[in-house]
Amino acid sequence: MTQPATRKHRIGGATRLFGIVGNPVTQVKTPQLMNALFEAGGIDAVCLPFDVPVNVFEPAVAGLQALGNVDGLVVTVPHKVRAMSMVDEVSDTARRVGAINVMRERPDGTWFGDMFDGAGLVLGLMRIGFEVRGKHVKQLGAGGAGAAVAHALAEAGAASIALADPQRKLPEQLAARLNRFYPDCPASVDLDPANLAGIDLLVNCSPVGMRPGDGMPAAFGAFSPALQVVDIIMTPAETPLLEHARQCGCRATNGRPMIEGQLAAFATFFGIDMPASFSCFSDEPA
Amino acid sequence: MTQPATRKHRIGGATRLFGIVGNPVTQVKTPQLMNALFEAGGIDAVCLPFDVPVNVFEPAVAGLQALGNVDGLVVTVPHKVRAMSMVDEVSDTARRVGAINVMRERPDGTWFGDMFDGAGLVLGLMRIGFEVRGKHVKQLGAGGAGAAVAHALAEAGAASIALADPQRKLPEQLAARLNRFYPDCPASVDLDPANLAGIDLLVNCSPVGMRPGDGMPAAFGAFSPALQVVDIIMTPAETPLLEHARQCGCRATNGRPMIEGQLAAFATFFGIDMPASFSCFSDEPA
Repeated sequence: MTQPATRKHRIGGATRLFGIVGNPVTQVKTPQLMNALFEAGGIDAVCLPFDVPVNVFEPAVAGLQALGNVDGLVVTVPHKVRAMSMVDEVSDTARRVGAINVMRERPDGTWFGDMFDGAGLVLGLMRIGFEVRGKHVKQLGAGGAGAAVAHALAEAGAASIALADPQRKLPEQLAARLNRFYPDCPASVDLDPANLAGIDLLVNCSPVGMRPGDGMPAAFGAFSPALQVVDIIMTPAETPLLEHARQCGCRATNGRPMIEGQLAAFATFFGIDMPASFSCFSDEPA
Repeated sequence: MTQPATRKHRIGGATRLFGIVGNPVTQVKTPQLMNALFEAGGIDAVCLPFDVPVNVFEPAVAGLQALGNVDGLVVTVPHKVRAMSMVDEVSDTARRVGAINVMRERPDGTWFGDMFDGAGLVLGLMRIGFEVRGKHVKQLGAGGAGAAVAHALAEAGAASIALADPQRKLPEQLAARLNRFYPDCPASVDLDPANLAGIDLLVNCSPVGMRPGDGMPAAFGAFSPALQVVDIIMTPAETPLLEHARQCGCRATNGRPMIEGQLAAFATFFGIDMPASFSCFSDEPA
């Protein structure tokens, strides 16, 4: 969808600053997405990439927080866990996941952190008509992104979550943590990644499918057409898993709804009015 | 002069960052000017306002310097003197003036500071056809901006500088400092601000003329048409002093050539290619 032409954004002395803190940052897309949002909303703010090397993380982030016109920061790899120590308070979600990917300054000058990696996926799924509540989930991959996604699915009312990851310790630890916080959503380690009996939603949070030549993350047979499939991978846009899902007649999506949902979550978190017609993918064909 | 249409600048992960450090920053024009320069040159860089409160100056600037994609900072009121302590080395000019208004990171990671407040005026004067070398100067105002301007005029080969300022200590200290560094350009305190005998260039660095109802900064009689008059005030664009100068047939200019010259100096300092056709006032009528 193409956005209506908007005034060219002019950075001036009164422009408010947001940024994404990572290392490296050359690959990030958050500035482009948030700046499109600011332009669409006629908001005098800009989002920058802030390249924060690991060895200067604390002083660099403290310096940014000390600026009078920085209102919020998005946090990406490899700083999400360490960023917990740079805020005064975190959300329950962030505390459970053990990491934040966003922080904002409150009116009293303190900083508040939250974690939207998973909430973005849940919001994105809602947006494409899939309601997580009551659904049985199978999730491949229990690393950093997987932990955030599983927590968000449990928080959104999933009926159960089966976790598969070749690094056995990861799903065990994640399942234990999920079961502590979400007793109504039993989490288990699934040693047969291809088993989809009773599953409504299949989410791939593993990196399998990113590299050329990758196959599917498990040796799946035919999917039931009722299965909803999400692969959070963005590049390539169509992984072997997604191709297989579509061939089986399933609803299938890549990480796009997750990113859209995440941007919407950022907008709410930062107090930015998001025009109803706005799409964060305005520059790309749908 | 209108610039040719350029691609819309898109901030992305690889965009390099520059900023102006001040408090407040809402009034600054450096981001607009430098961003117009970046756009005209097709350079993937952006200049931001960084609001640095006085009580967090050192950590905030250290934090910005620690970022991997911040290449340089412009420094404005009230941080120009204190910024000296945030760089590893300064130019001779900065050392003499005792302040910097610009710093850049060198390839080895150290920071280098310089002071262009005055050099901007000298460059700007050259650009409008006035050569400082050999000229006798009268300068009104010996505060922060005045100190930088006087040093630059002396450095550029002025024949003499007469300083007038109602705060008697300021011109005395500045004259002593100038005489120490530039023995070939005698600097003196002039107790009669309206006396222009033998003067080629009259520069107003005092704030008189900014406020509505202000008159001229001294009770001048008719100027010789040979006198070059500069008022570094930018708002209003035409002060009572400039009006008087034009009525007397003098060449007279406001702070515009100084800002243009300063932008050119920044570009050189930061290693930015400045298109020959570029004007930093492209959005305003000439």
